[in-house]
Amino acid sequence: MVERGGPHTRAVAGVTYRAGRGAHVIGITGAPGAGKSTLTTALCRSWVELGQSVGILAIDPSSPFSGGAILGDRVRMSEHDLANEVFIRSMATRGHLGGLSLAAPEAARVLDAAGFDPVVIETVGVGQVEVEIAARADTTVVVVNPGWGDAVQAAKAGLMEIADVFVVNKADREGAGETVRDLESLLAMSGDRRWLPPVIRSVATDGIGTDELVATLAEHKEWLARSGDGVVRRRQRVEEELRAVVTARLAERAEVVCAGARWDSAVEELFSGHGDPWSSADDLLQV
Amino acid sequence: MVERGGPHTRAVAGVTYRAGRGAHVIGITGAPGAGKSTLTTALCRSWVELGQSVGILAIDPSSPFSGGAILGDRVRMSEHDLANEVFIRSMATRGHLGGLSLAAPEAARVLDAAGFDPVVIETVGVGQVEVEIAARADTTVVVVNPGWGDAVQAAKAGLMEIADVFVVNKADREGAGETVRDLESLLAMSGDRRWLPPVIRSVATDGIGTDELVATLAEHKEWLARSGDGVVRRRQRVEEELRAVVTARLAERAEVVCAGARWDSAVEELFSGHGDPWSSADDLLQV
Repeated sequence: MVERGGPHTRAVAGVTYRAGRGAHVIGITGAPGAGKSTLTTALCRSWVELGQSVGILAIDPSSPFSGGAILGDRVRMSEHDLANEVFIRSMATRGHLGGLSLAAPEAARVLDAAGFDPVVIETVGVGQVEVEIAARADTTVVVVNPGWGDAVQAAKAGLMEIADVFVVNKADREGAGETVRDLESLLAMSGDRRWLPPVIRSVATDGIGTDELVATLAEHKEWLARSGDGVVRRRQRVEEELRAVVTARLAERAEVVCAGARWDSAVEELFSGHGDPWSSADDLLQV
Repeated sequence: MVERGGPHTRAVAGVTYRAGRGAHVIGITGAPGAGKSTLTTALCRSWVELGQSVGILAIDPSSPFSGGAILGDRVRMSEHDLANEVFIRSMATRGHLGGLSLAAPEAARVLDAAGFDPVVIETVGVGQVEVEIAARADTTVVVVNPGWGDAVQAAKAGLMEIADVFVVNKADREGAGETVRDLESLLAMSGDRRWLPPVIRSVATDGIGTDELVATLAEHKEWLARSGDGVVRRRQRVEEELRAVVTARLAERAEVVCAGARWDSAVEELFSGHGDPWSSADDLLQV
């Protein structure tokens, strides 16, 4: 219902907004092919061993439909022993006024209210929307690979600012040490930080590094609670979501204004050389 | 003023909306590197020889600032004998609420009101916004190159639907004949058309094909007048512009709503677990 948008979304928000249990929301982002899905699957194994049940949202703004390619990757997981403890959902933008910026936090809240903890929001790429969505988590994990540019790429994509944890995945490949060093230097240079993002090596296909990552994520969660930053982030998330809803409501209004007899006659008047579009728009909006 | 947006835009619209002289607005689009700038320069020579003065808007949504790279390309032209008859302006999105969808038609109208005819709107790439802007012209020219995919690429980018004229530029290269044939077959297959888009070969660097293109553009302009399609297009353009202004006004409203004491207390209430974002948004918007 949340994916489809419309009036149902509102009904869902009414139910789930107060039912949240405070799950640890983890954003995982990074360039396509960095191994985010494999890493998430490996993380799931560790969490399930620790007795946790995991909700996963896989976000793909570019995909014209929900499911598809991503879901294909996940078939292995659903066939697995993890199927009972892990819930996976792929999301695309389709049909959702306000887009993924609105749908992703709503869907994460549904998973939280349903008792999943942690909730993982995994984005397919490092596009602007995807980075924003991942950055709005409690803990944001950025996955890179050895030789993934000179780490300056990560800086350019705005990833240094949003990362709470860096993972250098495929760390058995050449150049892993250099990438770790580059990231650490860039992070050290980027000034006064209350939390210095650790850089973790992993080989997700073999499960190497995932236990360390799970421990680091738990550590960051504790730090969020201790430092008060957790509250600040959740407040920001609420604010961003309210902003997205306001924008969506105004977009609905635009759809209503830009149709019907009144609209047609405004267009006709303008077209025949009377007035200007700004005055017509104000008339239509009754400003 | 139109580029900067804000209240000045409105003042300009008030003046220019009625002052339009009905210039032939020509959109030129195509993949980066297809030779659009060179082709436009070559077209300018022909038009100036015919005694026309030309207004050019070069649209680059991806550019973080106006001018820059595009302007560099144009220095040659401004140093030239064309400088008196040709006005060139590069536009980016910066600072314009409502974006280029709003700024481009406004700027085109300014050029029209200033007496330029034709007015060329040249977009740098084939992104969604650029295609939309080019499609809103009286006549839309799509520039491709030999071997630019199997013409199916053009179809995928939605260019078959918007093209009134195809130009296969760099037609001295291998595969030009094939590209022309592919385009013609695709166009013939795409059903009932009142105007069948001609496919013109050009080598813009040598001025080859530009006279034919100038003649074809004039022919299309005549057809628009004769068939009544010109009126339909201009009406659509007015409608699109009014829609863009309505959207911009609502975005301004969102900026006002999402700030100040009332906003802060709505966020605080939500954050403390009361209500849901949809009800809060409605309160804020007084729906």
